[in-house]
Amino acid sequence: MKDYDQLRQATEAGIAALDIWRNEPRSLYAPATYVLGQGGKRIRPVLAMMACQLFGKDTQEVFLPALGLEVFHNFTLLHDDVMDKAEMRHGKPTVHVKWNANAAILSGDAMFAAACSLVAQASVNCLPEVLRAFNAIALGVCEGQQYDMEFESRPDVTLAEYMEMIRLKTAVLIAGSLQIGGIAAGAGKADVRHLYDYGNKIGLAFQLQDDLLDLYADQAKFGKKTGGDIRENKKTYLFIKGLEVADEADGKRLRELFATPARSQEENDEKVIRVKALYEKTNLRSLVEKDIEDLFEQARAELSKIDATAISAQGKKILTDFVAGLLGREY
Amino acid sequence: MKDYDQLRQATEAGIAALDIWRNEPRSLYAPATYVLGQGGKRIRPVLAMMACQLFGKDTQEVFLPALGLEVFHNFTLLHDDVMDKAEMRHGKPTVHVKWNANAAILSGDAMFAAACSLVAQASVNCLPEVLRAFNAIALGVCEGQQYDMEFESRPDVTLAEYMEMIRLKTAVLIAGSLQIGGIAAGAGKADVRHLYDYGNKIGLAFQLQDDLLDLYADQAKFGKKTGGDIRENKKTYLFIKGLEVADEADGKRLRELFATPARSQEENDEKVIRVKALYEKTNLRSLVEKDIEDLFEQARAELSKIDATAISAQGKKILTDFVAGLLGREY
Repeated sequence: MKDYDQLRQATEAGIAALDIWRNEPRSLYAPATYVLGQGGKRIRPVLAMMACQLFGKDTQEVFLPALGLEVFHNFTLLHDDVMDKAEMRHGKPTVHVKWNANAAILSGDAMFAAACSLVAQASVNCLPEVLRAFNAIALGVCEGQQYDMEFESRPDVTLAEYMEMIRLKTAVLIAGSLQIGGIAAGAGKADVRHLYDYGNKIGLAFQLQDDLLDLYADQAKFGKKTGGDIRENKKTYLFIKGLEVADEADGKRLRELFATPARSQEENDEKVIRVKALYEKTNLRSLVEKDIEDLFEQARAELSKIDATAISAQGKKILTDFVAGLLGREY
Repeated sequence: MKDYDQLRQATEAGIAALDIWRNEPRSLYAPATYVLGQGGKRIRPVLAMMACQLFGKDTQEVFLPALGLEVFHNFTLLHDDVMDKAEMRHGKPTVHVKWNANAAILSGDAMFAAACSLVAQASVNCLPEVLRAFNAIALGVCEGQQYDMEFESRPDVTLAEYMEMIRLKTAVLIAGSLQIGGIAAGAGKADVRHLYDYGNKIGLAFQLQDDLLDLYADQAKFGKKTGGDIRENKKTYLFIKGLEVADEADGKRLRELFATPARSQEENDEKVIRVKALYEKTNLRSLVEKDIEDLFEQARAELSKIDATAISAQGKKILTDFVAGLLGREY
């Protein structure tokens, strides 16, 4: 049974070995190798493989579809960065900055096609089910991005709407990766469903933690200035929950601060301090930490529903250790 | 056995009946219904179904994948129009003009995902082969668009390079549609290959005819001003072949005319007249018509290689009548 490091290394090696990046015209595939070569935790393929070995199957059963999930994820980053006009990712210029918007659009399309090719190499006995899962992921992620863009210009996004958006934009792919691993392993329908629900809760918790760390991370470890979402007036869980728990006067102040366009760096630093002070009045940080904890507990409950006789204890430990580590928690 | 009109109507009805257009958020799916609702000849799904009944199978065998091919084709139009900054298509504003570039990118992505879902509904015994064909189409079309964009800024594109570009950008989808129809019908590998090669030649002939009609169409029937490619300095088969057959002085004049940015309508009309006069010196129109005729003959030869005992004479007549009609030719 393989641990996280082995699975991550297998993913790296698998991506590097894909023939497609050597196709012509090289200019079409260069952005793909650029983003896929930036490493990262490879969460999605790792989860697919961990799900597969959870049910006692060799990770090889889902290896190519797992790579497809990573390629798909990176395709969405290319297109999202064009749509969101994001200039940096992982500390490097985004594709539409390094090349241009057309390169990001078209290389993204080619990556989506390459992802489909990889997923289509699931073994034929589980192929229809794997494809159903993958295509549902793909549509869900598009729907999530659409909501995300629409929320930018809406002043009245509710917490429930925000949760539905991040479910589609983030959690569906996490849940779907586990689901595809389970399907490829030949797990029973009910167990695959529990695994999906587990992934869904975990995916939501990841996003909430992301939103939290943007403001409260240890700056030395974080690698960039904290409070980036506040500087960009981005509506995150913190902001929407913050509005929900603030009194009327503070809610108004928060809205006003988030309606101010970003100006000088000093003014922005000042704005982050003021927003943070408002958040502290309601103990927002602990409230959000509690919400993440709750999601983590709900995830745990989903996982425990899986038929214990169908899974490997070692496989479960590898999976839960990995997920707990990502969330900075212990299982 | 169904004729063209019946197959086109079945395509229209099938597209209109797809559940996906009723998904939320509606804003994501509105551009898809906008472009798919504009009708058109539905060449690709019709060809897939005609290929299926050529081998004596009911078109139902390939109906959903055929719809997927049409959705896929329309996805490529959305993205191409953004990349090419095209403002009109089929006499209507393009999606990025009617909405915005982000809508065209993201709705396009959702259409690609929807296309994958439809193709994935091929019957399980031919599913891996159908997916291989579809994924090869998808990558090929991206590669073709990349070459097309790169050729814009290259002064030295050869006729062979141009043919390879249109093979990827246009012919691969025509050929692949027939191929998928053949696979779904359970045709033999060699016959599917002949059908693909037939479609490839037909696809190339379509594009050359498109390039030709842009300048030489009967304006009353054409629905827009002729010579649009010349006005936009677009390198088409006419221009590249025109350069190849012109003497040195005329070649230089042609290059100069195509290097002039479009200005007033009068100047553009004058430019079209001057380019046309240069083309006429080498009888370019007949030369290109001959090239189309040659491709049509080559296509015919490919089709005749298919095992005659495996196909329906009526199915063959329906297919060849349709294709000949598209090319304004008799079989």
